[in-house]
Formats: sequence, structure tokens, C-alpha cells
Amino acid sequence: MTSVEMNLILEEIGKKARRASASLAVLPPEAKQLCLESMADALENRKAEIMRANSVDIINAGNNGMDEAKIDRLKLDEVRIKAMADGLRQVAAQHDPVGRIISENIRPNGLKITKIAVPFGVVGIIYEARPNVTADAAGICIKAGNAVILRGGKEAFESNSVIAAILNESAGASGLPDGVVQLIPWTDREAVKLMLKMDKYIDLVIPRGGESLIRTVVAEATMPVLKHYKGVCHLFVDSSCDVKKALDIIVNAKCSRPAVCNALETLLIDRSIAPEFVPLLAEKLSARKVELRGDDEFCALVPQAKKATEDDYYAEYLSLILAVKTVGAVEEAVEHINTYGSRHSDGILSLIPEDIEYFTRNVDSSTVYVNASTRFTDGGEFGMGAEIGISTDKLHARGPMGTDELTTYKYIVLGDGQIR
Amino acid sequence: MTSVEMNLILEEIGKKARRASASLAVLPPEAKQLCLESMADALENRKAEIMRANSVDIINAGNNGMDEAKIDRLKLDEVRIKAMADGLRQVAAQHDPVGRIISENIRPNGLKITKIAVPFGVVGIIYEARPNVTADAAGICIKAGNAVILRGGKEAFESNSVIAAILNESAGASGLPDGVVQLIPWTDREAVKLMLKMDKYIDLVIPRGGESLIRTVVAEATMPVLKHYKGVCHLFVDSSCDVKKALDIIVNAKCSRPAVCNALETLLIDRSIAPEFVPLLAEKLSARKVELRGDDEFCALVPQAKKATEDDYYAEYLSLILAVKTVGAVEEAVEHINTYGSRHSDGILSLIPEDIEYFTRNVDSSTVYVNASTRFTDGGEFGMGAEIGISTDKLHARGPMGTDELTTYKYIVLGDGQIR
Repeated sequence: MTSVEMNLILEEIGKKARRASASLAVLPPEAKQLCLESMADALENRKAEIMRANSVDIINAGNNGMDEAKIDRLKLDEVRIKAMADGLRQVAAQHDPVGRIISENIRPNGLKITKIAVPFGVVGIIYEARPNVTADAAGICIKAGNAVILRGGKEAFESNSVIAAILNESAGASGLPDGVVQLIPWTDREAVKLMLKMDKYIDLVIPRGGESLIRTVVAEATMPVLKHYKGVCHLFVDSSCDVKKALDIIVNAKCSRPAVCNALETLLIDRSIAPEFVPLLAEKLSARKVELRGDDEFCALVPQAKKATEDDYYAEYLSLILAVKTVGAVEEAVEHINTYGSRHSDGILSLIPEDIEYFTRNVDSSTVYVNASTRFTDGGEFGMGAEIGISTDKLHARGPMGTDELTTYKYIVLGDGQIR
Repeated sequence: MTSVEMNLILEEIGKKARRASASLAVLPPEAKQLCLESMADALENRKAEIMRANSVDIINAGNNGMDEAKIDRLKLDEVRIKAMADGLRQVAAQHDPVGRIISENIRPNGLKITKIAVPFGVVGIIYEARPNVTADAAGICIKAGNAVILRGGKEAFESNSVIAAILNESAGASGLPDGVVQLIPWTDREAVKLMLKMDKYIDLVIPRGGESLIRTVVAEATMPVLKHYKGVCHLFVDSSCDVKKALDIIVNAKCSRPAVCNALETLLIDRSIAPEFVPLLAEKLSARKVELRGDDEFCALVPQAKKATEDDYYAEYLSLILAVKTVGAVEEAVEHINTYGSRHSDGILSLIPEDIEYFTRNVDSSTVYVNASTRFTDGGEFGMGAEIGISTDKLHARGPMGTDELTTYKYIVLGDGQIR
């Protein structure tokens, strides 16, 4: 297919989404809730279809030599389809973010200015392998009143196509026009590039996946992008802290799920507490098979530690490796975090109020912790219900993004003949 | 100068701004207020210097054949310098947007999550001719705790350089490090291009000027951009409305300041009221020398009207021309606005509650008016105090942007040893 032909089909997808979004935006909360619940039911009722499509993806993946762990993530069985459906039901039950009055203001001339939350319109989601994202992302977008255009990975293409079609048909049965949920019918780069120029139809793009995918999206997109680059999360062990709690927090932040973005990657330790703290730490972490890479002072205290390089302090390991650096005081810790970090989640373990105040004020990250694990940066843990991702941007949304973050606002100005 | 050399100097500017922003971000409200007031005093105390630099710009402009109206806008005299200083004093007196608690939430596990407004860090402003923007933009950015990197137009280069230097020195006298206000020392396109790649140092860029400047910035910038493309503003005259008020509002919206972005560009008229309304309208607007361009139905009622083309309905005239279209009902008016408009400011003139409801819900614009002039879309009129511009984006800020819109937020999570 030529890119001109592709573009024509993409234009059709865009127009359908735009039309559907206009209907979705004004759908009452109860109707949206029912629509999401009927989507959940449809996924369960049509599980055989989904599993059939999924088995094609699995066979292709095997033929293409995909490793077992990845194939497992691709797989949809009854339990996982029920989990997708339950996810939609949970989103359905949440508060409706559309129509919230953000502020009201009556001006001296009598104009009443109301700032009210409204959907973006059409949201594009670009994601990689796991097919459950299709239902999760669609559910959150719809809850916030947005039509959604999905572009999933090629590994899950058959599964994604069926899931998107079921969701879209189910929305149709709830009285919505065609185009509430659509999947781009190609998985090559050319189609993504064309999609990213459709700012006439897509109001916002959210890429989910590895850093290189995200950098490509940012470079190509003509519409706004909400994104998550990486999580190089830090904890700082202050000169005075609750040592037992600090050790538990560090072990939790590093070891509970090392492959996720809110896992600990670099530990900073105040020089004055190091001789007491480091041996205890090394023992705990060695027992958990964590490889330690430290500066000279740290290595002098921990014979088995490797020497850290500059690159280690920029690294998002996503595995059982921890970079460690000894620092002189809280100011140096903050300086290190703001230089090497990714503005994701960083914390201080301290009993000194002045240091806590300095740290929380000066660390430029979406989430700053005091005496808690960085692993809590998550929409569910923050009480947002569902999560569409975590933003490392500063514009619009920072940190975990739920349905509220998938809305924008408009001003309604009520007058009675006012002129200026 | 080679672009490598330029880049080195720009890096220095970026580093200075980043350092200055860290100090600014934690400056107490009173200190920020004093800093802005001393900047205002410094502008007045050093007016001779400013006028000397400005006279060089004026001479250059004359030599380059700039027209009188533009030269007038470039000119700084005592009155205009006082106005700049007073602008800074007004910003100083406003509420401080930094540190506002946006939400607080204690989780079942005891974590206390506070969402708090914080500065972006470093804001870049790219603007065209008028030198007073240098002080206005700097003032608003600083009030919101941001360091600012300015890139003004070449016509005002000498004036901008002196104003920026005075503001920066004055901040220094208030105890802030060098780099709170900096001007890029070149005005060619190459320097802008390099500046727009400095996402390491600049958190947000706001371009102010014509559509082509803004499109260039959006295409080149690697950091987020808040922008205003254009204002193709509409009013819809419904089948039932207060005719006298409607006429006054239309005249005001079109004629009070036709060259601004919130001026009326296209009028939509319900077919059923046209025979009664159009002759009155044509008389009023002809008296104000407004050229009318309408569809066939409108032209049949107004002999002097020209025939409107498709392009007229996309046009931002910024002059005494008005496009007019006859429509069947509110739905058609909304459809027209969402297709041809720029999502800026659009209004309905109506006495029918159902139509008002339909219009305000379905028009996808930053500001939707009911029975009032579109000319009110303005930070001052909205009660925001100063304004850095009007956003036609949907991400982060929509409509008039004041100091609140120049902040982002972070989450502070207070724990007592919580692990996940």
C-alpha cells in the first residue's frame, strides 16, 4: 500500500474518531458507566473469538523465535480476559472526571466565568506488546469522554484487532456512533509516522513503551505528547534516620519489583552515617543478590562492591543492580538527583526536619518521598483508580495519570449583553 | 560565529538560568514581591540608558525603511517606561502562585500525598518587535518562580538588551544569582534553532507573534510549547435573541479593536431571524465601515455585501471585514465553528435555554460565551491580573494564561516507613 492510500484510510479513521468523540463528550456519566460495563461483558461473552485471534499471535511469535517470557506476556486465557473485563468495570465505577467545576468567578461587570473539565476529544495511544493494554487504555480514555485511536505492537496485532472491534461494536450497541475505539490496521513505522501528523484529528498522543519508541514519537508528533521517559529513582540516607525502617525501605524499593519504573536505581548516603549504615545495608542487599556499584568511599566499606562509573549514575538498570554514592550533606544529594535523575520519584530517609524541608522543596521530581518507598508512585496507590501511565513531563500532568489527567477544560462565560 | 561557538555560549546561558531558577523557586512570596518592585524602580531610575539604547533601535529602523506605525510601537519614552515599571508593580502585588496546595489525600496505609504548585524552572519566551514585552514577560515568569531566557526581535535588540540587563542586575541586588533574566545575544534564526534544542535547560517555551513564527517554534522545539495560533472567533445569532443587545455585542466584538485575536471574524445567523435581523445589522456595521462577506442568503438581504468564499470562513482578518453565514439551527452553527474555528472564543446570542446548553456543551473552544462579546477573552478581564498570552492548545493551559498557568506541580509523599 502506498503512503497516499494509507493516509486516506487514516483520514477516515480520524474523521470517525472525531465524530464519535463529539457524542462521547456529552454522554451523561451513567450512560458512560453502562457503556463501559457492556464493553466488559462483551469481552467475556466473546472470549472464544479473542482466544482464537490470540492463538494466531502466539503461533506467529513462536515462529519468529520470541522468547518464552515474552510469549507468556502476549498470551490471553480466560483468567486474563476476565481481568481485562474487571479492569473496565473498575474504571466504569470510578468518579466521572468530565464536567467538574474547577473554578467559578463572577466579575464586577456581572460576567460569570466557569472553568469546567472537558474531554480532550481524540486520544492516540501507541504501545508495544501486551494486548490487555488495548482494553485498559480504551476504558480510561472513554471514561474521560475521549474517543481513542490505538496503535499496538505487531506481536499482538490479531488479538488487538479483535479486542478493539468488540469494544467499538459494544459502544455502538450502547448508542454511540462508530469510531469510539479504533485500531490502526498496520503495525509498521510508516503508519505511526502518518498517524503522528494527524493533529487535525488527534488531540493528544500517549506513547507507552521503551525510551526509543517514546523519543521517536516526540520527534515526529505534531500534536501534544504526554510521556514517560524513564525512572532513575533515588533514595538519600540522611545523617540521622531510623536505620531499621531505612533498610526496609531500601530493600523494598530495590527488590520488590526491580523491572518497574518506580524501583530504586541509585542510593545516596550521607558520609557521617556511612560507617554505621553501609555494613548493615550490604548484608541485607547481598542476601537479596543485589549487585552493588559504589564510589571509592563506599567500596572501601564493602569489599564485594564494584566501582561505579559516571554512566552508572545515569542508568535505569531495571534489574538487581544498585548504584551507590557517598555525599557530604542533603544539598549534595539534591544536586546529584537533579543532575542525574529523571524527575520521576526520589526520596529522603531522615529524622531531621530541616533536611526534609530542603529536600522536598529542592528536588525537581514528580513525586518526592519522605521515609517511604519510591514504589508507591502508581495511580492505584495514589487513589486515582486506573492509570494510563506516569508522566515525567512537567506540562499538564506530572507523575501518575488517571482519568482526571485525560481531561482539559474550557471557560463558559455567561453574560447579559456585556460589551468591552 | 560558528554554531558550535554559539552553542557554547547558549549552554552557559542555560546553566546560569538553571542555577538561578533553583534559587527563585524557593524564594518566599515577600522576597519575590520585593525583587519585582526593585526591578520596577531600576527601570525608572535607569530610563536614560533605556532611551539611549532605544534611540539606536529607532535610527536603525528608520534606515531599514520600517513604516511609521511600527516605529511608533518600537519607541520607548518616559511614559512607556513608567508603564513597564507599573506593570511589574502590578504583577508584584498579585497572589503568589507557588506553593498552592492543589489537593491533599491521606491513604489507608497512612501515606500523606500533597499535590503542590511549583515553578516550571526555566521558561523561554520568543517574541517579535515590542520591547515592553521584555519586562512584562520577565515579570510574570519571575512571579511564578521561573528564570527566563528571552529571545526578542532584531528591531528592538538594543532596547531589549538594556532592559534585560537592568532586570537581571536588579535581581542580583535582591540577592539572586546571575541569570534570572537573560537575553539571547543574537536575533538570527540559527540562534533560535539552537535555543529550541536546549530541553536540558529550558522547561517550557512560549512563542509570541505571528502564526509563521509559532509554527516554526513548534516544528523545531524539543521542549513543550504553549502557544496561540490564531483567533477565528464566531458569534451565533439564534432564532430568538435580544436583538438590541445582540447588535451591540456584534458591533463591539467586531469594531472595538479589530486587530486583536479575540475580535469577531465570522457571524452565523439563524435563517428564521435573518429577515428581521440582517437589515438592522447591515445598517449598524456599514455605519462603522465594516466590509461584509456573506453567503447567498445573506447577500440577497444586503445588496452591498460581497460573496464569501470558503477561505473567508477560515480567515482571521484582524481588520474591519466580517464573514457571515446563514445556518439552519444551533447544531449547524456548532458544526461550522468546530470545523472552521481556531478553538479560541466563540459565543451564542440567544434567549433559548436548550440552544444555549447545546452550544456551550458542544463548541470545542477555550472560551464559550453566552450573550456577551468575545472581546473579554483576556487575563485582566478574567481576573488573572497579568497575562502571558492566550493558549489555543488543549494541553496544560487553555485560554488566557496568567501566573498560575506558569506553574506545574509535584507530589510530596510523607511516610513513616511505608513499603509496598
